[in-house]
Amino acid sequence: MPMSERCDAPSSEPSSRRTGVSATLAANEALERKRREGIPVLPMAFGEAGLPVHPALRRELADAAGRNGYGPVAGSPELRAAAAGYWTRRGLPTDPGLVVAGPGSKALLFGLLLVIGGEVAVPRPSWVSYAAQAALTGAGALFVPTRPGEGGVPDPELLAGAVRTARQEGREVRSVVVTLPDNPTGRLAEEATVRRLCEVARELDLLIISDEIYRDLVHEPGREVHSPALFAPERTVVTTALSKHLAAGGWRLGVARLPEGTSGRALRADLLGTASEIWSCAPAPIQRAAAYAFGEPPELVEHVDRSRRLHAAVARAVAARFAAAGCRVAEPQASFYVYPDFAPVAGRLADRGVRTGTGLAGLLLERYGVGTLPGCAFGEPASALRLRVATSLLYGESDEQRLAALDAADPVELPWIARSLDRLEQVLAEVTAPEPALAGAGVPAGV
Amino acid sequence: MPMSERCDAPSSEPSSRRTGVSATLAANEALERKRREGIPVLPMAFGEAGLPVHPALRRELADAAGRNGYGPVAGSPELRAAAAGYWTRRGLPTDPGLVVAGPGSKALLFGLLLVIGGEVAVPRPSWVSYAAQAALTGAGALFVPTRPGEGGVPDPELLAGAVRTARQEGREVRSVVVTLPDNPTGRLAEEATVRRLCEVARELDLLIISDEIYRDLVHEPGREVHSPALFAPERTVVTTALSKHLAAGGWRLGVARLPEGTSGRALRADLLGTASEIWSCAPAPIQRAAAYAFGEPPELVEHVDRSRRLHAAVARAVAARFAAAGCRVAEPQASFYVYPDFAPVAGRLADRGVRTGTGLAGLLLERYGVGTLPGCAFGEPASALRLRVATSLLYGESDEQRLAALDAADPVELPWIARSLDRLEQVLAEVTAPEPALAGAGVPAGV
Repeated sequence: MPMSERCDAPSSEPSSRRTGVSATLAANEALERKRREGIPVLPMAFGEAGLPVHPALRRELADAAGRNGYGPVAGSPELRAAAAGYWTRRGLPTDPGLVVAGPGSKALLFGLLLVIGGEVAVPRPSWVSYAAQAALTGAGALFVPTRPGEGGVPDPELLAGAVRTARQEGREVRSVVVTLPDNPTGRLAEEATVRRLCEVARELDLLIISDEIYRDLVHEPGREVHSPALFAPERTVVTTALSKHLAAGGWRLGVARLPEGTSGRALRADLLGTASEIWSCAPAPIQRAAAYAFGEPPELVEHVDRSRRLHAAVARAVAARFAAAGCRVAEPQASFYVYPDFAPVAGRLADRGVRTGTGLAGLLLERYGVGTLPGCAFGEPASALRLRVATSLLYGESDEQRLAALDAADPVELPWIARSLDRLEQVLAEVTAPEPALAGAGVPAGV
Repeated sequence: MPMSERCDAPSSEPSSRRTGVSATLAANEALERKRREGIPVLPMAFGEAGLPVHPALRRELADAAGRNGYGPVAGSPELRAAAAGYWTRRGLPTDPGLVVAGPGSKALLFGLLLVIGGEVAVPRPSWVSYAAQAALTGAGALFVPTRPGEGGVPDPELLAGAVRTARQEGREVRSVVVTLPDNPTGRLAEEATVRRLCEVARELDLLIISDEIYRDLVHEPGREVHSPALFAPERTVVTTALSKHLAAGGWRLGVARLPEGTSGRALRADLLGTASEIWSCAPAPIQRAAAYAFGEPPELVEHVDRSRRLHAAVARAVAARFAAAGCRVAEPQASFYVYPDFAPVAGRLADRGVRTGTGLAGLLLERYGVGTLPGCAFGEPASALRLRVATSLLYGESDEQRLAALDAADPVELPWIARSLDRLEQVLAEVTAPEPALAGAGVPAGV
């Protein structure tokens, strides 16, 4: 799909000349408006962890409120050391001098794409912002499909072909992004795929950017994440953040692990130069709390464990509802996303006038208050009847409910979560029923 | 000066392919290293306010530590309303819907330059990051000298000529940046200059970006800042932040006030689209504290008043030391900067082998531990023997000293500040003495 093909995520925000408000954030704002109007909603568009920040982490931030200096562009020495320890404990020995912190891993990814330059190969589907950021740098993204049943890593053979073709056309492709585990699919690529991707990257001299923000949210205990930094350490940048496993998205704190060696150090210097001109440093009080978090004290480790179990239980339950309605849906393996495909019920959707992912997401949002994002937001063709469904905002509307969900042996039995699942089942049954349940229940105006 | 001409601020950081680590941040890091080595330093390179954050503001941040959601890209409604009130009280009635918050006004300025596109006219001299950001967007900066004795606003007649010439050469110049009051000169442009700039901007259809981050630090009580938003409201973006008058640079919180009307709303939509892909939102807990700050409770107003008096007293005393050493130096009118010109003692510097601003800053840093930034970091020619001297890190090395400085009736009489001023006087006397004080006291190796 060419980058210029329109993909309107359901939202009333005006779109930008260069890029619309990030599709996820825009859909979130649309749902907030509906909620304020008193319309019941199933908020499943937005990739927010849906849990309160752990009290110990809040306390660290509160204690650091006096930190007002800019400090080093790369982040405080204590934060860099803590992040290095975090990676070292995951089999990636890390020099703190190669860690760069920033106001979110999103900002770090943008900085990396800007300094690397050239086009970037990204998986199809992949997180909305990779391609949007590539467009902002003026270069653009080269979408490469993932292997069937996997997610987050472009099929290495297709990648090799696509990069060679692009280069023959005179286009510069310099990097490839992978997401391990993946958003939007909630899947974790196989070790063999990652190994092969590293070989191809080496053959083609591509830098690998491995977004591992969901790394600590793999559902199956003990299942390993195979980072490309294991197999191609000289060319892999790894990023992560506090946003997902520690539910601190609004704090804006990410870290990048740059490769060792001459080119890694040059890349770090470039990234710091750019960082100093765009954001100066990550917020200082939050750096202090992040240093504590990346130190992984037992109370946070236990908290992340419980969060992971909750994410797994609810994602599995949501996937089951889509499967029951006739969708094709892979078992969620990590994070809090489900990625159903409505292709098997395409005929019934067509009866309702729905022929695109955007139309489907629009119908769900406008008619049923069910927020999701269409596959096209993730680089899929407009005709793909796939949705990214984020399951983590179903945990409750108050911190009391969310903490109860975190504590529950079987969270899907909690009344408010069960009600949401029932509502989802009912909506999906209606949308995929052999005949439209109501006359005029097609796509609402303006979608 | 063409953008490609090297201006090496004294620093051992590796330079970047696209841009070095921001000159101010790099010099700061170099001084920190010297300090850690036990070398006495006069840290006057870095534009940090040098004061602790007010306890009430710290308390607000601590109380907001539980805020972990992303929230709207533009910032929370309470923050936008507070910022609108702040501007309204300054004669700029503001619709909260036209306020956009971000992680520092630096990030907002970058986002604006990116979405506006084209070259940007900037004053010569001007803050290091405007031109660096313009380079990152791929367009570049057009330096236009300020009127003699003023700072922060390109001479409007020269601007008109430069833009017309550039356009005849096929270059697109779409915007102009002004800094009111100014960094690096510490001067406040005259009302007539601002009015004329607005006329020229209208004639040439230039957007005006008015960086008013030092607005609340004008030394003379009651002296008005004449924002271009008063005279060209349809085309002026105003930015400010918590970094300077509230000394919270490391918190990373800025706000922009977009123009009303169709093009202002389109610019806002573009800015939000870009913001959502680069930084998502300003840090949520800090947004809460910023809402409190922009509400201007009496304890903060009183604190800013005291800060302003301290900045004025020390900047004046530092300027006097440079004047006594034979430099040409305009009276500081705002902020905590002094901008001396060593041209009258150029011959004596040449005797020491110093013929450039970089050489001068390097001599002061490497031989005397006196950190400043050369004029070329602000767009001046390499031969300009001008320095930006930031005076705010002389207030003390501990919060106790800094608070004593804030409370003192005559802060320059405090022993640690007096000692710094004496040391500066002695260094300047030595550097500008008729004969080099020591054989071999010229430019040290590597500078």
